[in-house]
Amino acid sequence: MATSAARGVTVRALVQQCLSARLQVKPASREDVDDATYVEIGRGIVIYLCFLKGADSAVVQKTVKALTSVRLSFNAETGSNGSVLDIQGDILVVPQATLGGKIKGRAVQYHGNIAKDDGQQLYDEFVSLCNKEVSESSTSGDSQHQQVHHGSYGNRQVLSIVTNGPFTHLFEF
Amino acid sequence: MATSAARGVTVRALVQQCLSARLQVKPASREDVDDATYVEIGRGIVIYLCFLKGADSAVVQKTVKALTSVRLSFNAETGSNGSVLDIQGDILVVPQATLGGKIKGRAVQYHGNIAKDDGQQLYDEFVSLCNKEVSESSTSGDSQHQQVHHGSYGNRQVLSIVTNGPFTHLFEF
Repeated sequence: MATSAARGVTVRALVQQCLSARLQVKPASREDVDDATYVEIGRGIVIYLCFLKGADSAVVQKTVKALTSVRLSFNAETGSNGSVLDIQGDILVVPQATLGGKIKGRAVQYHGNIAKDDGQQLYDEFVSLCNKEVSESSTSGDSQHQQVHHGSYGNRQVLSIVTNGPFTHLFEF
Repeated sequence: MATSAARGVTVRALVQQCLSARLQVKPASREDVDDATYVEIGRGIVIYLCFLKGADSAVVQKTVKALTSVRLSFNAETGSNGSVLDIQGDILVVPQATLGGKIKGRAVQYHGNIAKDDGQQLYDEFVSLCNKEVSESSTSGDSQHQQVHHGSYGNRQVLSIVTNGPFTHLFEF
């Protein structure tokens, strides 16, 4: 089977619709002190993001455009579709290097993942572009309620997610 | 870019470690009655499963073996690794046809997905084999506490998940 790199894939993005999601962005200072910091979104999408070797700013732009404009099922009852921008949904970006792993024997190897510093830069670009798409799509004051949050690159992501149907998508770019 | 089918991929499995997860397996009878049925697991893995055209019993066996034996990071603090069987973790299997989707323009197409009846049969085999792996791996009475639960194939999956680091993996077979 061809590797992702051989196929020219440089971004793996997992998109999961949610009713709400909560991500720890700063851990508690001590185990017995509950002063961790969280960000939270309402209805929208969680984007788990992994950059592979060869990813660049161009593919980041393409990925953000695609993920914010693709029509997804946000309501299983009514079958209503729309992009996250159409429904003025929230976006939570979660760095997720593990998505680049491949099973080798009983281990998971990460030979295809991008170097951490390069990944950090592309991650920051990704988050900025998501914010830009959300603010540009606003035609009224409503968008002030549309949240874009993100996890800290390289940190452990402590996440809770509530869905009424996860509708998990994997998109590769 | 080569399609998954062209690469010979017939199973997409997303594995997400969790502290707990809760899945609705039977919806409420009426909107105002809270009699929905749920299954719940503790520490372990959620497996989101999608069969593509060409999947058969052989690849189901291979997938179950790989997912139950691959060593994952279950503890971010200590970095301890083990398979879900090693840690006597729980397993929640969630059918997830959306994982087979591909972006075409602004829509998501599912041309690679297996026919529903074939998918149902392979899904049942997958769940049986997970149960078998868990019961065979038990060397003591402890395994009676190890849970295997699963969603109903073809239904909407109402899911909540709590993680201390989602460590999301996509494995293709």
